[in-house]
Amino acid sequence: MTEAVCLADYESLAAEVLPAEVFDFVAGGSGAETTLRRNRTALDAVSVIPKVLAGVAEADPSTTLLGQSVAFPVAVAPMAYQQLVHPDGELGLAKAASGIPYVISMLSSHPLEEIAAAADIAWFQLYWLRDRGVVESLIDRAVAAGCSALMVTVDVPVMGRRLRDVRNSFVLPTGVIAANLVEGSTGRAHQAAGAVSAVAAHTASVFNPALGWDDLEWLAGRSSLPLVVKGILDPEDARRAVAIGAAGVVVSNHGGRQLDGSVASINALPAVVDAIGNDCQVLLDSGVRGATDILRALASGAAGVLLGRPLLWALAVDDAGTALVRLRDDLIDVLLLAGCADVAAAARLATSRES
Amino acid sequence: MTEAVCLADYESLAAEVLPAEVFDFVAGGSGAETTLRRNRTALDAVSVIPKVLAGVAEADPSTTLLGQSVAFPVAVAPMAYQQLVHPDGELGLAKAASGIPYVISMLSSHPLEEIAAAADIAWFQLYWLRDRGVVESLIDRAVAAGCSALMVTVDVPVMGRRLRDVRNSFVLPTGVIAANLVEGSTGRAHQAAGAVSAVAAHTASVFNPALGWDDLEWLAGRSSLPLVVKGILDPEDARRAVAIGAAGVVVSNHGGRQLDGSVASINALPAVVDAIGNDCQVLLDSGVRGATDILRALASGAAGVLLGRPLLWALAVDDAGTALVRLRDDLIDVLLLAGCADVAAAARLATSRES
Amino acid sequence: MTEAVCLADYESLAAEVLPAEVFDFVAGGSGAETTLRRNRTALDAVSVIPKVLAGVAEADPSTTLLGQSVAFPVAVAPMAYQQLVHPDGELGLAKAASGIPYVISMLSSHPLEEIAAAADIAWFQLYWLRDRGVVESLIDRAVAAGCSALMVTVDVPVMGRRLRDVRNSFVLPTGVIAANLVEGSTGRAHQAAGAVSAVAAHTASVFNPALGWDDLEWLAGRSSLPLVVKGILDPEDARRAVAIGAAGVVVSNHGGRQLDGSVASINALPAVVDAIGNDCQVLLDSGVRGATDILRALASGAAGVLLGRPLLWALAVDDAGTALVRLRDDLIDVLLLAGCADVAAAARLATSRES
Amino acid sequence: MTEAVCLADYESLAAEVLPAEVFDFVAGGSGAETTLRRNRTALDAVSVIPKVLAGVAEADPSTTLLGQSVAFPVAVAPMAYQQLVHPDGELGLAKAASGIPYVISMLSSHPLEEIAAAADIAWFQLYWLRDRGVVESLIDRAVAAGCSALMVTVDVPVMGRRLRDVRNSFVLPTGVIAANLVEGSTGRAHQAAGAVSAVAAHTASVFNPALGWDDLEWLAGRSSLPLVVKGILDPEDARRAVAIGAAGVVVSNHGGRQLDGSVASINALPAVVDAIGNDCQVLLDSGVRGATDILRALASGAAGVLLGRPLLWALAVDDAGTALVRLRDDLIDVLLLAGCADVAAAARLATSRES
Ligand SMILES: Cc1cc2nc3c(=O)[nH]c(=O)nc-3n(C[C@H](O)[C@H](O)[C@H](O)COP(=O)(O)O)c2cc1C
Ligand SMILES: Cc1cc2nc3c(=O)[nH]c(=O)nc-3n(C[C@H](O)[C@H](O)[C@H](O)COP(=O)(O)O)c2cc1C
Ligand SMILES: Cc1cc2nc3c(=O)[nH]c(=O)nc-3n(C[C@H](O)[C@H](O)[C@H](O)COP(=O)(O)O)c2cc1C
Ligand SMILES: Cc1cc2nc3c(=O)[nH]c(=O)nc-3n(C[C@H](O)[C@H](O)[C@H](O)COP(=O)(O)O)c2cc1C
Repeated sequence: MTEAVCLADYESLAAEVLPAEVFDFVAGGSGAETTLRRNRTALDAVSVIPKVLAGVAEADPSTTLLGQSVAFPVAVAPMAYQQLVHPDGELGLAKAASGIPYVISMLSSHPLEEIAAAADIAWFQLYWLRDRGVVESLIDRAVAAGCSALMVTVDVPVMGRRLRDVRNSFVLPTGVIAANLVEGSTGRAHQAAGAVSAVAAHTASVFNPALGWDDLEWLAGRSSLPLVVKGILDPEDARRAVAIGAAGVVVSNHGGRQLDGSVASINALPAVVDAIGNDCQVLLDSGVRGATDILRALASGAAGVLLGRPLLWALAVDDAGTALVRLRDDLIDVLLLAGCADVAAAARLATSRES
Repeated sequence: MTEAVCLADYESLAAEVLPAEVFDFVAGGSGAETTLRRNRTALDAVSVIPKVLAGVAEADPSTTLLGQSVAFPVAVAPMAYQQLVHPDGELGLAKAASGIPYVISMLSSHPLEEIAAAADIAWFQLYWLRDRGVVESLIDRAVAAGCSALMVTVDVPVMGRRLRDVRNSFVLPTGVIAANLVEGSTGRAHQAAGAVSAVAAHTASVFNPALGWDDLEWLAGRSSLPLVVKGILDPEDARRAVAIGAAGVVVSNHGGRQLDGSVASINALPAVVDAIGNDCQVLLDSGVRGATDILRALASGAAGVLLGRPLLWALAVDDAGTALVRLRDDLIDVLLLAGCADVAAAARLATSRES
Repeated sequence: MTEAVCLADYESLAAEVLPAEVFDFVAGGSGAETTLRRNRTALDAVSVIPKVLAGVAEADPSTTLLGQSVAFPVAVAPMAYQQLVHPDGELGLAKAASGIPYVISMLSSHPLEEIAAAADIAWFQLYWLRDRGVVESLIDRAVAAGCSALMVTVDVPVMGRRLRDVRNSFVLPTGVIAANLVEGSTGRAHQAAGAVSAVAAHTASVFNPALGWDDLEWLAGRSSLPLVVKGILDPEDARRAVAIGAAGVVVSNHGGRQLDGSVASINALPAVVDAIGNDCQVLLDSGVRGATDILRALASGAAGVLLGRPLLWALAVDDAGTALVRLRDDLIDVLLLAGCADVAAAARLATSRES
Repeated sequence: MTEAVCLADYESLAAEVLPAEVFDFVAGGSGAETTLRRNRTALDAVSVIPKVLAGVAEADPSTTLLGQSVAFPVAVAPMAYQQLVHPDGELGLAKAASGIPYVISMLSSHPLEEIAAAADIAWFQLYWLRDRGVVESLIDRAVAAGCSALMVTVDVPVMGRRLRDVRNSFVLPTGVIAANLVEGSTGRAHQAAGAVSAVAAHTASVFNPALGWDDLEWLAGRSSLPLVVKGILDPEDARRAVAIGAAGVVVSNHGGRQLDGSVASINALPAVVDAIGNDCQVLLDSGVRGATDILRALASGAAGVLLGRPLLWALAVDDAGTALVRLRDDLIDVLLLAGCADVAAAARLATSRES
């Protein structure tokens, strides 16, 4: 393949240009990668029943996420260390995300302020650090940088055991750092140590596994930004998040990178939407690879999706902007083909499970 | 393989004689081709429970479609540009369709009048053009040419993104034209333009994506021909079509060429039949490859099927007539093997889903 | 492989010694062979829930079929032209079938009288011929030869289109004849004729496709032998067979050789057993390949199974006797492992569908 | 692969060092190995719905099995003749099983006393021998050696027909003996005899197939050790075991080595837990290959699992201790990732079936 004609094409293009262990770090899942694979088979099994004769000349993919206008119902998923795949790193991808939220990972390799400046809409993603002072300072910095939402990731009490990285003794290259953290704090992530993932070792040393609902409540009150809880699969948990004041929830299994054996996001979605769909926006990620997947998610009750790996692949070949423009175009077509004038119409489509 | 012994054999025979990009244009589906594949897996999963001791010497495959007597419950699906696969094009296939309706595509490469003259039973298929005057003139021409039904295709507000064509930068060969449209109107379809399907570009320029139910109502009143609505998968839509006066509905996902991720036709069929089966005839297409598939469709409530690609493959190797005779013979056998004296008996067979 | 250690092994052993077109004639199914494959996947999906601590030293596999004592609940399925695979033909297989019914095919290549003499228990299988006189004389001969049951096969109004035979232009070798029919009547089966199965042509010329329930009633009254109806998949049909006086029914799709797309026998079984299980014995065939399959059938309500191709494979390598002894031994083990003292206990096992 | 990074890796490492027929003896299942494969597909299909924000710093994997404190909810499954894979045999594996029960197989290749001395927690597994005196003396020896539970295996009235061993004419190497039985009693297991498994022949000669519920009752009263019944899949049987006084039940199909075609353990588990979960502990084995499988079992109602082949593979490459430490570590991570502070929390997780 020489040129991408759809979002899914970037994976093999990126495989040609990236070092194998970097490709593996991005592509891989945890454990036996059961959940990684299931995310795809589960999405593929969701069939949509299109409507016809909608009588609209062009579908409008714009919508609002957390009350903010977006060009189409997609946000760039928070992904750490984007300079791993391209020198432009987060700055490149943030610029590419025209009209949609770019979620800055706490572990970005550029400082959050620079990324926020490059993005149309910036949200900030937070992991829970052992040092609460650092958490507070990061929130303050995100607010100051103009981020318009806070996303707290709750599915990483510890890092999932990603066996590809362990087999590769994966180590962050010097020069790729956690730019938002105090100098040197990623030291561990750069130290080779036998059959161990250095990134996982670093995570273990700085993340606080003991995050609880009280902490979340504290966080909800700590800033005026809308709070999105990322990594929820259980409807009860979704209800608790809403009770605490979450403005959004991301139904996610972290792209199959955390608990191997956890349910596919798309299969967990309907119950979560049933539980909290009237009270808060439900986003979905894990396995989305094109406009049809977005339609599947919308028709299953999601307000929008986060998109992860495909954008890193596109970034790696310097084509993220085109990739997102094409995705929006494809989504317009897909909406039209499903007889939907807009995103709200897509939510009313019927679905069925086929395999 | 040197000789076809069943309808499904023609695909590989045609692959040997056709240019790769023409083969791809016909064979391909949209997007990830999920729906293209699902059409087959879904049909294969429909098992029929045959009856025995029917006490008939020969099964009668004849029936009526839209009140017209047909030799067996099959119509040739409307397919554009048939000269792509054989110089005889539509004239060849129309002649082969002895005793069954040949549906003339609006985008036929021979003029509809010549095709209608060659066919036993001619129906005319209409796409909705931006220029309503052209639509009216086409209807008038179809009536004048003796077409006995009007089929309006409602699942192409825009063309599905067929990635094979995009990868091939597929362009209509000079000489293959949309013979029913005013001269030169297919110019766009002949212009190469990077990673783009020229046929899709042409479609976008002449088709009106904004077709609505009002237009359909206008169309139903515009001619006295029975109106068939092709491309319906949703039972509500089916009810609306009947309310407007449709004499038939084709449950179809356009052979997996339009919305990738849409439900398999055979899986959408039962709900549509439940909704409108008493009021109008329901046909099915997408994935039919032999007599057993016809039986599956009949037993699931269809009055008959449209047959697409396999007939283009047969045409490509100059064998469409034999292909259809053999299909009819196979259907007689299959009816007998299922204990059915006729098509009406097939409708009473029980089915189950196995996989 | 050099030696068979289980029944399923014989297929590849036979493939080494048989001419390819003979192998294909036996192994093949009709059409796309969907039903042929499904017979296996459906059996494999039936899981048995074994009982423990049955407290029996040895399981007893003997039972009665049609009131006749048999060594284990298996009968040799009627299969035509067994000299195709071995010069001993039916005589060889009948001798091997120690203690169990050998069902003589009407199309046997040895005279039925010789086979009946060689068999412990002989049943006679009848196809419905155009000439009723021949039918009557065959019944009389079967009675005279000591056959203890009449099995009428009702799923062959015409022969299923077996594409392997068509591709091979399969012709019965001279010397392999339908020994029970008047001289020369198999002439058609020996004449090569392009892409056509000569055996199918012969069948079409002598079989009466119009067999009905009245004929069956006549047949039930014509002899005092218990009547078994082979080839029933629909519960209504099963009820009618019982009403007419059938002593047994074989739930069968003819090993996937007749209606391609018909339901797997094992999946059709439970509804038939529900319908007639209290009134008559229900046997099963199609896809049985070992003792576990027999257990699956018994636990699903069958009184026993017919075994087809595996025994032809064993006959081809001169090992049918051993194959059947081993199968009985395996069945004893399997019963013990399932905690069943006997065949009646197996009928009480719970099953579930897994895949 | 050069180094194992997870439990499942040991299989291929062991394949490199073990004689093929020993590998086959351990890896193989009975019959067509349907159940062997199904154990895995069924486990893979169980998805867990993790909880978040559990608020615990470290998950505690310790629990009690039969009232005995264990480091994590795993016991080493009883496996015969462990010197087959490593000279240390049972002594090596027992030492590796730090903090968890090591179940001594009656057919251990070291004397049970030596193994019990090497183990932290030793349970003794009993097959039912034809000679009840030997059974009694084994129980007495187990008690005297300090074993703290008696596990009686009830799914081996005869050995399942393991075709790999038959094809390999598998014979126990001289030097690997049933060390607990009187001298020479494994003679049969060492004698080659054509296409036969010598181990199966030995089993048949010494095991009593006729074990019944009365015997179990006798056994329950014979010693004061808690009794665990291994090899139950049917809920009724589970109830009877409890009625007789069983302290635990192992839902097991013997790793697919006994009745081929029997239900996957994990699929049989919920009904057994429903039946007896309040009265006694339910363990599970067959197919467990990592921490996620343990979580699946716990979330499906098991109190813990037995682990078989993976530990023999690890023993074969002298790494069983590390394997178990890593498994415990993985389980801690998996509990954390599922939001579970401990084993009790895991039991409250919801599951779903995906495939
Ligand atoms: C390389 C990589 C790094 C990631 N880093 C983070 C992160 O820093 N914070 C976070 O919340 N999620 C992170 N994720 C998870 C993503 O936000 C997202 O949940 C996941 O990638 C979605 O699945 P997809 O890649 O299949 O689209 C990361 C994922 C990848 C692939
Ligand atoms: C090459 C090709 C051209 C087609 N052109 C048209 C067309 O002009 N109008 C239309 O309504 N459908 C068109 N279709 C769709 C067919 O009418 C039909 O819905 C589809 O081919 C059925 O699926 P099958 O090919 O699997 O039988 C076309 C399909 C193919 C393969
Ligand atoms: C070579 C062959 C010949 C057969 N001939 C007959 C026959 O003469 N009469 C009949 O009733 N069934 C016939 N059958 C069908 C068998 O009786 C039986 O239904 C089928 O083989 C069972 O499936 P199995 O082969 O998978 O066990 C034949 C099957 C084969 C394979
Ligand atoms: C080589 C081998 C020997 C075994 N020996 C015994 C035994 O002596 N007693 C027993 O109760 N189970 C025995 N089993 C069965 C195990 O206890 C256990 O049920 C099974 O291995 C669990 O499945 P797994 O191997 O997939 O974990 C044996 C299994 C294997 C693989």
